[in-house]
Amino acid sequence: MTKPLSGIRLIAHRAGVHVSTVSRALNPQTRSRLSHEVATRILKIASDLSYTRNPLAFGLKTRRSFTVGVIVPDITNPLFPPIVRAVERTLGKEGYVTMLADSGNNRETERAILDSLQARQVDGLILATAWLHDDIVTKCQKQNIPFVLVNRTVLDEGVTSVVTNDVYGIRLAVDHLLQLGHRKLAYVGGPLNTSTGTGRRSGFLAALEAYRMTVREKLVIDCASFTVQDGAAAARKLLGTANRSFTAIVAANDMLALGCYDALSEAGLNCPQDVSITGYNDMPFADRFNPPLTTLRIPHDQIGMQSGQLLLRMMRDPKAIVPSVHLEPLLVVRGSTASPQK
Amino acid sequence: MTKPLSGIRLIAHRAGVHVSTVSRALNPQTRSRLSHEVATRILKIASDLSYTRNPLAFGLKTRRSFTVGVIVPDITNPLFPPIVRAVERTLGKEGYVTMLADSGNNRETERAILDSLQARQVDGLILATAWLHDDIVTKCQKQNIPFVLVNRTVLDEGVTSVVTNDVYGIRLAVDHLLQLGHRKLAYVGGPLNTSTGTGRRSGFLAALEAYRMTVREKLVIDCASFTVQDGAAAARKLLGTANRSFTAIVAANDMLALGCYDALSEAGLNCPQDVSITGYNDMPFADRFNPPLTTLRIPHDQIGMQSGQLLLRMMRDPKAIVPSVHLEPLLVVRGSTASPQK
Repeated sequence: MTKPLSGIRLIAHRAGVHVSTVSRALNPQTRSRLSHEVATRILKIASDLSYTRNPLAFGLKTRRSFTVGVIVPDITNPLFPPIVRAVERTLGKEGYVTMLADSGNNRETERAILDSLQARQVDGLILATAWLHDDIVTKCQKQNIPFVLVNRTVLDEGVTSVVTNDVYGIRLAVDHLLQLGHRKLAYVGGPLNTSTGTGRRSGFLAALEAYRMTVREKLVIDCASFTVQDGAAAARKLLGTANRSFTAIVAANDMLALGCYDALSEAGLNCPQDVSITGYNDMPFADRFNPPLTTLRIPHDQIGMQSGQLLLRMMRDPKAIVPSVHLEPLLVVRGSTASPQK
Repeated sequence: MTKPLSGIRLIAHRAGVHVSTVSRALNPQTRSRLSHEVATRILKIASDLSYTRNPLAFGLKTRRSFTVGVIVPDITNPLFPPIVRAVERTLGKEGYVTMLADSGNNRETERAILDSLQARQVDGLILATAWLHDDIVTKCQKQNIPFVLVNRTVLDEGVTSVVTNDVYGIRLAVDHLLQLGHRKLAYVGGPLNTSTGTGRRSGFLAALEAYRMTVREKLVIDCASFTVQDGAAAARKLLGTANRSFTAIVAANDMLALGCYDALSEAGLNCPQDVSITGYNDMPFADRFNPPLTTLRIPHDQIGMQSGQLLLRMMRDPKAIVPSVHLEPLLVVRGSTASPQK
């Protein structure tokens, strides 16, 4: 007595092809090796039979799960959703499912997430959480897990990343403020254990130096995180300095800039009449704030798409050397900057 | 020659306990059955040995993956990140990893996501994507996959959901506008294949009826999606009606309200001087728009936490009858509403 056919064997029987052909058709990675007609016919039969490949069992056999992990430091920062959406779409087309996790800017949580994702055998990672010295990056390198850093990078230049030119971006903001007539600039920066924090800070100092302007230490404040709360605390400190001598604040990102808005309102001051403010990222809604924020636009879609594509190359060929992508930010002038009064 | 101990056996040996005790300690579901001291000691040894339980292999054996899928219709709508974050935290404490997916408001994509998540054997789902008639809900019911609907629900009242009272919320908005002196209200609604779309629309009609006000059909527009784009198109249509007779727009959510802002600006009109606008959700940043948006606040954290907790109950006891949670929205009055001019 023969066992009735089921699963992949039944599909092969109905399609009149070998089991390995069915296997190829069901795997998005190998599907293109078949003719369109054959692949479509097999997928139709599989669909009629409500057959779904089990990537879990498949993953144990081939060590592929067709799952990619994306870790973001703060899902409530509107910068990340458009990047994540572009990653999802780029990888989704190739049959990968994106598993998004939010570390809440916490290294412990990052480690726990990495352990969980690894245990689920993700094929690769996109990390928006990089610290200059990063355990997770080191662990991925040691264990040969393909990964791409996005938005932030690490000190080790051998790591593949998709980032924008932070020094150049802040230079654009400083140029803009000087052209408006500002001469006394303050800086509200990000955490110095991130590349965006250090890069933007260096950009600010370098720009002042290029114009032979003095850096007043009291007017440069580094925040522990890129949040509205920390931005507000820093701006309060700036506004509390003995002689409130500055007429503009360069903030290291849009969330910090929003915090500066808040501190200004609390002090009964107006932006841009009393103090001009610039941000960084051009996150969704930055054009809708009151006043609309002058900021550096980074190409969210491009960043997501490129990082997805780089990761695909790495996952397909673990030995490939995949170079980083550097994108240029663009100054977007809106209502938060104006010539200084008096 | 005996094989050297490794993995769970080595941990058991070092801890001086039985392998099954180690297994219990490593599983967040069963950990509480051990004394705190024993559990901590075992976890410490496991950590020292860099041992991570493999939920994939574990999942094949026990049919548990300790993964929960969350599907949102639009990750770029700031309403969802705080809900997702609360879900993650609630489930994370119990050892579950959250796999977030974004359907882009597309039923095809929803189905593809469900297939992928199922193939990865998620233990449960939180769906923010419900349509009144929903394939995915039917499929989950048939296959006994634990799931909780969030924000939106389906016609079938037997389904567990965490939603707010839409009819009541819109009634609060209408009451507020009438108190300000408005008598001619327009409505920009959501898709009528969602509970939020129909519930808020009924709320608007019922409120007018309660005050014996006539409903002008031309002043009630239903949008195909809850997006800024669709809100702007609807408001343009309203502003183009023969005699622009309304002084206020009740929008069915904040994204639609933002679209109304845009259409008003294009027409050279001001909010609230020319037209008052109300939203729904009190999404992050609603207080920062120009003007700050008067809206209905729904408790994002509560919604995420409660839906996580309901799902945990279902996953632990598939036979449990878990009742839905209804939360009340709260009117938050800001700058987008004022008494009508003239």
